[in-house]
Amino acid sequence: MGELVVKSCFILFFFFVICQSSLASKKPLRQPCKRLELYYHDILFDGTDLANATSAKVANQTTLGNFKFGMLVVFDDPVTLDSHLLSLPVARAQGFYFYDKKNDYNAWFAFTLVFNSTQYKGTLNIMGADLMAADTRDLSVVGGTGDFFLTKGIATIQTDVFQGAKYFRLKMDIKLYECY
Amino acid sequence: MGELVVKSCFILFFFFVICQSSLASKKPLRQPCKRLELYYHDILFDGTDLANATSAKVANQTTLGNFKFGMLVVFDDPVTLDSHLLSLPVARAQGFYFYDKKNDYNAWFAFTLVFNSTQYKGTLNIMGADLMAADTRDLSVVGGTGDFFLTKGIATIQTDVFQGAKYFRLKMDIKLYECY
Amino acid sequence: MGELVVKSCFILFFFFVICQSSLASKKPLRQPCKRLELYYHDILFDGTDLANATSAKVANQTTLGNFKFGMLVVFDDPVTLDSHLLSLPVARAQGFYFYDKKNDYNAWFAFTLVFNSTQYKGTLNIMGADLMAADTRDLSVVGGTGDFFLTKGIATIQTDVFQGAKYFRLKMDIKLYECY
Repeated sequence: MGELVVKSCFILFFFFVICQSSLASKKPLRQPCKRLELYYHDILFDGTDLANATSAKVANQTTLGNFKFGMLVVFDDPVTLDSHLLSLPVARAQGFYFYDKKNDYNAWFAFTLVFNSTQYKGTLNIMGADLMAADTRDLSVVGGTGDFFLTKGIATIQTDVFQGAKYFRLKMDIKLYECY
Repeated sequence: MGELVVKSCFILFFFFVICQSSLASKKPLRQPCKRLELYYHDILFDGTDLANATSAKVANQTTLGNFKFGMLVVFDDPVTLDSHLLSLPVARAQGFYFYDKKNDYNAWFAFTLVFNSTQYKGTLNIMGADLMAADTRDLSVVGGTGDFFLTKGIATIQTDVFQGAKYFRLKMDIKLYECY
Repeated sequence: MGELVVKSCFILFFFFVICQSSLASKKPLRQPCKRLELYYHDILFDGTDLANATSAKVANQTTLGNFKFGMLVVFDDPVTLDSHLLSLPVARAQGFYFYDKKNDYNAWFAFTLVFNSTQYKGTLNIMGADLMAADTRDLSVVGGTGDFFLTKGIATIQTDVFQGAKYFRLKMDIKLYECY
């Protein structure tokens, strides 16, 4: 009888260990469950390059400083797996940015990455400050749909190329911490 | 004595089962904990219909394509339980949308559903791409306040009526996956 | 032997209590894990006060009502620990707001709190309706980076001073419910 009890207790203890480790997996996950490295290309419309342009200014810069404060741009930009503008896009980045500093360049972004490939279908919703003076900047992935159902995470961006107002390219390192 | 121990162990085991099922309920919940079916009505101001209009253009479309690219609209739109525009609103949708595609109609939304009824008090914050070519589109519910404290989920929208620039109605199927 | 078993069971029970309380901490956390009380100062550019202004209008109000419907403002505003405008900022609030009601003042905000002090480095991303008629209004903290990695919460705002279009100050009570 006593032996049976001891065995039962061992079984219970074993359950406990599972229970605890299961709990542990709910604690701070610093390792992303999914990671995407992507390139974002923005070609600002100059009024003539209709074929190539992927974004357009919808509000002019103000006279608050000399760094385009207030200039608002709406975009539908191609997103590729490598840095080549003409590579087949794996997603579109749809949203807007504006400049928002009077004594330096600085921007703010909100956009959706729309995936419609064989690999992924769904969207990631992203927003945050683009502190252009920093080498890398972290935006928040605040939600997702489809294959990215209810995700959240960090989108680390880095300026890869900046050709004045005409073209710039961002490298995006997207780390997702909730995957279903 | 042994019997008491066995009883204790059964009680412990019973707690374990509760413990486990409680954990299980923290795993991927594909079943929403709350679901709302709502209708969103947008009547764009034409400069004269002050009494009826619920939204207004704040930035003009650009010349990038022929699908209103860049046109930005701010709204304070009524939200109803059935599809009738004149039904008593259960919420207001406050936010903005803009068009963002050069070769087709496509939009991007960010808004707050403000509930102030006997049933619900609080807000839902929503953002995402409105891929108008698709039958249904998923936006992200990225946060909530009041009765919707810290929620997240999916807002599936569907065009119910589209009368040119003047009036359109969206059916919104809101599925929340975190309820406190 | 029986005594040993009883002891084992007590130990197990003790683990259970820990297990349960650990679970409990995963349930509705109404107690924030971090709380910040901050003041946000907005000085709207009038075209001349370049030195002091921290925000600028990028889209004009429409004629839908008399409460600035559609007026869009981009800001890079100082955020301080006490209510004094000239205190050393602990963060910048970068983002935008617009007015969105035709028969009263009401606004909508999306912005990033950018911290770069000895105490905090990182950002909080915030959005929501500013129901100006209410004494306090809740916005959603929809994400965070750096020291605020993956957080979410509520930013309760309150108008502290309102000096027409020129200057206003908000008290922000930020409650975070996920801390890593």
